[in-house]
Amino acid sequence: MTLKALLLNCTLKKSPAPSNTQVLMDLVIECLESLDVACETVRVVDHHVPFGVSSDEGDGDEWPAILEKVLAADILIIGTPIWFGVRGSVAQLVIERLDGTYDSTNAVGQYPLYNTVGGTVVTGNEDGAHDAAATTLFNLSHLGCTIPPNADTYWVGTAGPGPSFIEAEGWNHPYTRKTAGWMAHNVVHLARMLKEHPIPPEGNTTTPPIEPAGHVEKRMRVAVDEPDSLPS
Amino acid sequence: MTLKALLLNCTLKKSPAPSNTQVLMDLVIECLESLDVACETVRVVDHHVPFGVSSDEGDGDEWPAILEKVLAADILIIGTPIWFGVRGSVAQLVIERLDGTYDSTNAVGQYPLYNTVGGTVVTGNEDGAHDAAATTLFNLSHLGCTIPPNADTYWVGTAGPGPSFIEAEGWNHPYTRKTAGWMAHNVVHLARMLKEHPIPPEGNTTTPPIEPAGHVEKRMRVAVDEPDSLPS
Amino acid sequence: MTLKALLLNCTLKKSPAPSNTQVLMDLVIECLESLDVACETVRVVDHHVPFGVSSDEGDGDEWPAILEKVLAADILIIGTPIWFGVRGSVAQLVIERLDGTYDSTNAVGQYPLYNTVGGTVVTGNEDGAHDAAATTLFNLSHLGCTIPPNADTYWVGTAGPGPSFIEAEGWNHPYTRKTAGWMAHNVVHLARMLKEHPIPPEGNTTTPPIEPAGHVEKRMRVAVDEPDSLPS
Amino acid sequence: MTLKALLLNCTLKKSPAPSNTQVLMDLVIECLESLDVACETVRVVDHHVPFGVSSDEGDGDEWPAILEKVLAADILIIGTPIWFGVRGSVAQLVIERLDGTYDSTNAVGQYPLYNTVGGTVVTGNEDGAHDAAATTLFNLSHLGCTIPPNADTYWVGTAGPGPSFIEAEGWNHPYTRKTAGWMAHNVVHLARMLKEHPIPPEGNTTTPPIEPAGHVEKRMRVAVDEPDSLPS
Repeated sequence: MTLKALLLNCTLKKSPAPSNTQVLMDLVIECLESLDVACETVRVVDHHVPFGVSSDEGDGDEWPAILEKVLAADILIIGTPIWFGVRGSVAQLVIERLDGTYDSTNAVGQYPLYNTVGGTVVTGNEDGAHDAAATTLFNLSHLGCTIPPNADTYWVGTAGPGPSFIEAEGWNHPYTRKTAGWMAHNVVHLARMLKEHPIPPEGNTTTPPIEPAGHVEKRMRVAVDEPDSLPS
Repeated sequence: MTLKALLLNCTLKKSPAPSNTQVLMDLVIECLESLDVACETVRVVDHHVPFGVSSDEGDGDEWPAILEKVLAADILIIGTPIWFGVRGSVAQLVIERLDGTYDSTNAVGQYPLYNTVGGTVVTGNEDGAHDAAATTLFNLSHLGCTIPPNADTYWVGTAGPGPSFIEAEGWNHPYTRKTAGWMAHNVVHLARMLKEHPIPPEGNTTTPPIEPAGHVEKRMRVAVDEPDSLPS
Repeated sequence: MTLKALLLNCTLKKSPAPSNTQVLMDLVIECLESLDVACETVRVVDHHVPFGVSSDEGDGDEWPAILEKVLAADILIIGTPIWFGVRGSVAQLVIERLDGTYDSTNAVGQYPLYNTVGGTVVTGNEDGAHDAAATTLFNLSHLGCTIPPNADTYWVGTAGPGPSFIEAEGWNHPYTRKTAGWMAHNVVHLARMLKEHPIPPEGNTTTPPIEPAGHVEKRMRVAVDEPDSLPS
Repeated sequence: MTLKALLLNCTLKKSPAPSNTQVLMDLVIECLESLDVACETVRVVDHHVPFGVSSDEGDGDEWPAILEKVLAADILIIGTPIWFGVRGSVAQLVIERLDGTYDSTNAVGQYPLYNTVGGTVVTGNEDGAHDAAATTLFNLSHLGCTIPPNADTYWVGTAGPGPSFIEAEGWNHPYTRKTAGWMAHNVVHLARMLKEHPIPPEGNTTTPPIEPAGHVEKRMRVAVDEPDSLPS
């Protein structure tokens, strides 16, 4: 079974500037690919994604194309730098744009991100990883994602300004290496489980289901006429 | 399949003082019981649970008995009031005491709370539920819990001081009712899934496995000699 | 003594869309003006302010013009909506851009925002005001601002989706009215104090002072050759 | 002018166990004393301070004696370890107990902590200092404290488990040394200012003033019959 992972890099810097966050994401991708996951990365700031809380803000908004990838993914990973102790503004913008998904459902009436597994990757030269990860994973869980154990990996240096991830060769940091592997494995374990056994549409649906916007074919895998076998 | 849920009420007030948080927890329990879950509630402050980060602080510490229930549960729900915009001190103490679980593993070498599903219930007369829930669910995910979609329910009033949950009859609040039901259903859906298909001990273990402290029989359900069928 | 206040409205919506946050900011402005404060509001999203952490990102960046107003103000108030339980992405972007101020000092070698007083205004249809305000005021204190008592005012509705500030006529909410007044008075009390008695450049300077970027005339009021009379 | 500082050490560990947080607090104290501040430290967990939100929970509650020191101090500094990415449970308990101060006022009708300056000291073996400091300083500002620029100092190591402050000799860390000095100087600068020029009781009082509980003599320095000279 091949799974699809979408990784959104929320660095503040446009390509081709080097992104510390991307390098840690690449460590996660390496592990995901070894587990037969097809990975795609989108560097959000390279696209025209305006502020807003709908799925299409018009005027050349490139979010709808990104959203289509989000909805097609089995695994959604948000990578973000830390700025001033919290996740960066681009990660916040991405979460705000995902607010638009509340306006539709999957085929069985759940939020569109049900059966997607969420994870996060955080880098900063210091302090703030817990806050950035906690906020991001919690928001993803509200949007419908399942959060596996140890669904985050991060690197930060000691207190105060200092070298960033690339400069410090943070990929050699034992804790970061360990948690990158744990996170990659656990999002895969859960995604496989949810692919074979989607969360039953019982007690967690919007009634009536909202017409899905766009191509949400993945969600069709739980047919509406399938009996709710589990919780009955 | 009967599941076990442990609900830790982290109110600051000892029995028999009424607990707002308990009343919202009771709404969740009602739903859990309708789904064939055996529920047990522990009001932490009624027990002698000293500050600390080990599983047994000695001197009549009653945490070990609570921890045994935690480890035997399929579903772990932490209920907390909001104080000053964040979760209360008793919830913080409970999370700190769970730090001790990092010192052992389940039978297959994962953290003891792997295959446990986490959820949270938050009440306050105002503002702070997102922070309290995000911090708590994130900490539980670090400890090994899986966090389903919409794994929190809360009630808060408008800005500033005002009536508490009981006084405001918060159980009639449509959003709180809805999220209590969603949360209860989703912790059950995921707990059933993990009971039948535990998270494989691949890429997420402490090597070598640490000798589990106490009775961690539930964890034995994944035998160490069982082939890692899924991700290989 | 006339003071200058700059209020940055960090709504996600461009003009002329109505801004809930602006309406609460207007309540604060009304009070500030009654205290002889000259107020200017900038709706950040109406300007081209790219992501970044420097004071000038080039290519038509309009932040330098806003920064000039920031540095000339005695009182700096950040207004932000809540999205997903935390401050919005535009507020985060503004804080990130203020990172550039760390690269210069005032005339006496302190961070440029020393002797500026900080405050915040938060609106959301529900929960998240404490987190948004705490993060924002803390970041401002790191940048050099002084935070008076009760330096925030907010309005939020009860748990879950609901009417926004304007729709709910939140300006009638007693707690919000009270805190708007307290906040306005206290930023003025402290700003007057700091105008007459700037924080002495003792134990809090970058050595040697960094050449200030742009017009930071206000900061000149503490002359470098003035003896450090207070703490000696 | 001699100022009084009260430092509350919120370590989880009772004496005589070594406290990492205390060692960083001692660095701050050394600086405060060089500025002619009389410092007193209370290690909260050595006292019987039950959970609660009133100023006296009865039954041998030792908080009232600590509160008396809080109210007599010109500078209030809360030292806390980080646990699970946020401030420890004892710091949360202390803030909760300060809730009781809302039930009285100083002699001019403001919250009792008006004209007190707040600061914080945070240590952890990793990540979480921004969240711990932001929450604590914000809560103090709500209670009436003034927060100077750079009112926090902290030490944390790199990502993941690692040596604690003492073991790592964190007192040699340049950023921590610098911020400890800045923080100490700035709480003194502001406390001197507020001692000479208390925040006028204009636009920030509870009407009518609440009868203060206990000995709040310090607050008497702004006489009620003194004309409100500043803002009128």
